[in-house]
Amino acid sequence: MFAVTDATITCCAPIAREPLSESDAVEMAALLKAVADPVRLRLLSLIGSHAGGEACVCDLTDAFDLTAPTISHHLKVLRTAGLIDSERRGTWVYYWIIPSVVAKLGALFTPLSEPGAASGPVDVELVTA
Amino acid sequence: MFAVTDATITCCAPIAREPLSESDAVEMAALLKAVADPVRLRLLSLIGSHAGGEACVCDLTDAFDLTAPTISHHLKVLRTAGLIDSERRGTWVYYWIIPSVVAKLGALFTPLSEPGAASGPVDVELVTA
Repeated sequence: MFAVTDATITCCAPIAREPLSESDAVEMAALLKAVADPVRLRLLSLIGSHAGGEACVCDLTDAFDLTAPTISHHLKVLRTAGLIDSERRGTWVYYWIIPSVVAKLGALFTPLSEPGAASGPVDVELVTA
Repeated sequence: MFAVTDATITCCAPIAREPLSESDAVEMAALLKAVADPVRLRLLSLIGSHAGGEACVCDLTDAFDLTAPTISHHLKVLRTAGLIDSERRGTWVYYWIIPSVVAKLGALFTPLSEPGAASGPVDVELVTA
């Protein structure tokens, strides 16, 4: 049930450290496709930043000018990708993010040194001059 | 020439800290679409991890069983998104990543506390008990 997510928690080193393998690239591209949508990004941020670390679907629909089925579709994409999980309690379904999966995306794009220290060979000279 | 990139360097807070605005979500989704492809992710990692911080197009093509025009197409997508830049020197074109733009993706998915500390409301109770 959790094997797919747990087996890949160690993936991946930052892109600035070493080349990604083909299989890791396929896996990370699938995660990135799930978040590469403005509505899903906003849903993730609404869920992730909600008080208590979880959001009722009733907290989410008001933020969008979209139908409930459309919101549900986007939530399902995030859930299928392993970025969020959910549970029904009484009337409502509650959602929370899976920090270890979100952190994999963050780690992939973590700079090795301070961000903005180098923006190419030419700019490095300008910055350090 | 650099206005688009520089104007957005402050975007965005981690998704676990605050809701993304609609315009920030549109901007970040465009960046994420550019990297949500296995070939482009591998290209980014080959360029970003290459000795000297830049890679000749001649360093990139051998890693893929793809035609040169296909590789060029993917490099153009990354360049148009502002994730890499390039320069022709003599026979070859050299590419390097733009760390400040890559870092924006990393910042978006940075956990607020240690990764894996919370994976839902139930686990939070366990951790803090």
